[in-house]
Amino acid sequence: MIKANDPSLHSWIEIDAASDFPIQNLPFGIFSTIDRDPRVGVAIGDYILDLCVLGRRDFFELIDFDPNVFHRPYLNDFIALGKPIWRAVRTRISELLRNDNDEISGNSDLIRECLVMQRAADMLMPVKVGNYTDFYSSMEHATNVGSMFRDPQNALLPNWKHIPIGYHGRASSIIPSGTAIHRPKGQTKSPDMEAPTFGPSQMLDFELEVAFITGRETALGESITPNEADDYIFGLVLMNDWSARDIQTWEYVPLGPFLAKSFASSISPWVVTLDALEPFKVKGPVQEPKPLPYLEFTGNHHYDINLEVLLQPEGAAENLICKTNYKNMYWNMNQQLAHQSSNGCNLQVGDMYASGTISGAEKGSFGSMLELTWRGTDPILLSDGTKRAFVNDGDTVIMRGHSEYNGVRIGFGEVRSQVLPSI
Amino acid sequence: MIKANDPSLHSWIEIDAASDFPIQNLPFGIFSTIDRDPRVGVAIGDYILDLCVLGRRDFFELIDFDPNVFHRPYLNDFIALGKPIWRAVRTRISELLRNDNDEISGNSDLIRECLVMQRAADMLMPVKVGNYTDFYSSMEHATNVGSMFRDPQNALLPNWKHIPIGYHGRASSIIPSGTAIHRPKGQTKSPDMEAPTFGPSQMLDFELEVAFITGRETALGESITPNEADDYIFGLVLMNDWSARDIQTWEYVPLGPFLAKSFASSISPWVVTLDALEPFKVKGPVQEPKPLPYLEFTGNHHYDINLEVLLQPEGAAENLICKTNYKNMYWNMNQQLAHQSSNGCNLQVGDMYASGTISGAEKGSFGSMLELTWRGTDPILLSDGTKRAFVNDGDTVIMRGHSEYNGVRIGFGEVRSQVLPSI
Repeated sequence: MIKANDPSLHSWIEIDAASDFPIQNLPFGIFSTIDRDPRVGVAIGDYILDLCVLGRRDFFELIDFDPNVFHRPYLNDFIALGKPIWRAVRTRISELLRNDNDEISGNSDLIRECLVMQRAADMLMPVKVGNYTDFYSSMEHATNVGSMFRDPQNALLPNWKHIPIGYHGRASSIIPSGTAIHRPKGQTKSPDMEAPTFGPSQMLDFELEVAFITGRETALGESITPNEADDYIFGLVLMNDWSARDIQTWEYVPLGPFLAKSFASSISPWVVTLDALEPFKVKGPVQEPKPLPYLEFTGNHHYDINLEVLLQPEGAAENLICKTNYKNMYWNMNQQLAHQSSNGCNLQVGDMYASGTISGAEKGSFGSMLELTWRGTDPILLSDGTKRAFVNDGDTVIMRGHSEYNGVRIGFGEVRSQVLPSI
Repeated sequence: MIKANDPSLHSWIEIDAASDFPIQNLPFGIFSTIDRDPRVGVAIGDYILDLCVLGRRDFFELIDFDPNVFHRPYLNDFIALGKPIWRAVRTRISELLRNDNDEISGNSDLIRECLVMQRAADMLMPVKVGNYTDFYSSMEHATNVGSMFRDPQNALLPNWKHIPIGYHGRASSIIPSGTAIHRPKGQTKSPDMEAPTFGPSQMLDFELEVAFITGRETALGESITPNEADDYIFGLVLMNDWSARDIQTWEYVPLGPFLAKSFASSISPWVVTLDALEPFKVKGPVQEPKPLPYLEFTGNHHYDINLEVLLQPEGAAENLICKTNYKNMYWNMNQQLAHQSSNGCNLQVGDMYASGTISGAEKGSFGSMLELTWRGTDPILLSDGTKRAFVNDGDTVIMRGHSEYNGVRIGFGEVRSQVLPSI
């Protein structure tokens, strides 16, 4: 076991048992406050540990890197240092926060300087995303969508069990939790209309996804295997990959989704490292037919992460509308990344690779309104008495995720975004 | 007319009449030499004018910007300054290079310092591409592809004349002319095979495209009109958007092309400004049905640019295999960019937007091997006696483009790339 994951560890910082950020998590993010410019921090309980401050005071001097990488508006320069450095830094932070260590805890001035209340900070985009791919790796989701949009008898297309199907998404419109979005406008055409019209989407949807971030590059022409992928994946965030279903229906043949997706993708700001998720590795589903050799892997690369989606109408209460689990995916991250590189496409530091909508087998575990309301035909009744076929203006969509073992909770925090009317 | 475009201008530098880079062109690029680190230059005849040198010596002091933007490995910081600055800089360079100006020409030390032979320089990527979109805007190409892959009777899909169809491409694998590519590997499955196999693509293809680069950003949620797009477009390059047709056929339903495209897209290194192309604006085709209001424009936004593709087997002569023209496009750049932003997707500095394959009406004007050989059924005979259904290992594909008016030739140089075997 990775030492920093030991369930018996405790911090000198008081941390609520329900917190997503115990000493075993230590996710990385970028934050700023009224008097601190954007920099790297680590979440611990209700606080952020300012790594910029610790770096300047030589707390990482035994690790071979320039701690100025913590004084940056993105994690890219830090994660480009590679897995041995990520690991050493996380291990060192774990040590500094442990209840038997007084390097920080014994110095009240330093405590004030290096700990910031999360509620006093703004969380920014953790990485500068150079390339964004959205996979489509939940069999239940692909089957649901295929049933609704194509043929219920042949819902899963012939390539689906051979290829971790994916497409390139728009990197510029990936935004952090807390950023409101405007309802997108676009062309739509229902079958009974003669010509398309342009206006606000009438079928605005969320998609519950998990996205991973790469911290190592490959050269153009090179490929990696699924087993090698572990050294490339820095960590994971939650993603709400907003979708406009009416725009999608009209535009997506033959080149795939475009403006139906590119208006916004919201992510949780804390990157939970692959290392912190190590205890939650589980066996994935049996893949039959057996994937081609370039997609073969050993060991477990699925992760047991509880996920939920809540919808909150303006001024009303949160409604839990979906509970599912990331372990439901058919294709795992390692296969996705190996597939991405299999044609020689070069991977870069800061790339984001999303899972595709995560749906389970039962209705309450579907990761989109499209599926939960079966294309709007079976609306959801909310606690304030209103119904939803899709997402309304004023609604806030919240996604949360966490894993748990031996009483330790490793959480993602949340991705929360309100929908404003079209401009 | 823009002063720098005046056909009567002449430079004190001797420029061959067949050169792509007379004083009326002045395209921007990034170059390095054995003793100059990457920086901004402008092509003039057989030379590169080193803007970094001119900036340091205050030749742009009457223009309000920091000339250190020329000492960068990408054009992004320069073009982010906006159109009034691009214009003023180009006008000033035109003035400095004019035969009646002795600010540089009268100082032989300075001439040696600021002029570099193109053949002594390495041309690098002109911009750091944050987002790459590939459109599909040639009606002839879309019709050809629809005929081959779907239904010859309904080759053009119902949305095509309403939407400038496009999809997001991979930014990381856009590379400059001169970079060899490796034949991509991938999954393919012909209809007569039971299961897919993995290996080198057997249907490697080029796509002749023109791509434009944006130099101004929008905020998330904002949209621009086609008429406003002129202020966002910095300039144009040629693109060879490499494609693996066998990978594409098996993977592209339902989410569009992915690994069939992401292994490489090669571009010409000199960015020809929209201003330099002003004299070549022409009326486009009649768009019927009339596009929706958000795609309406006034004035001419098509450009008369002669394009050609040459294929050169290893150790043999170049073969001209395609002659076409950019003015053949159905949708213009301004409509493409307005469409991209119409859902509120934010534009960024350094984005690249490619036209899609540019095909004319006749066979010799088709912009891909797929169309030229009609999916390999009618191979091309080359001058060395060999035939090509698609591109072979060892082949070099060369694309060139230029416009001409009043004896002035505004050229793009070339994009040239050799295909190496799979790794």
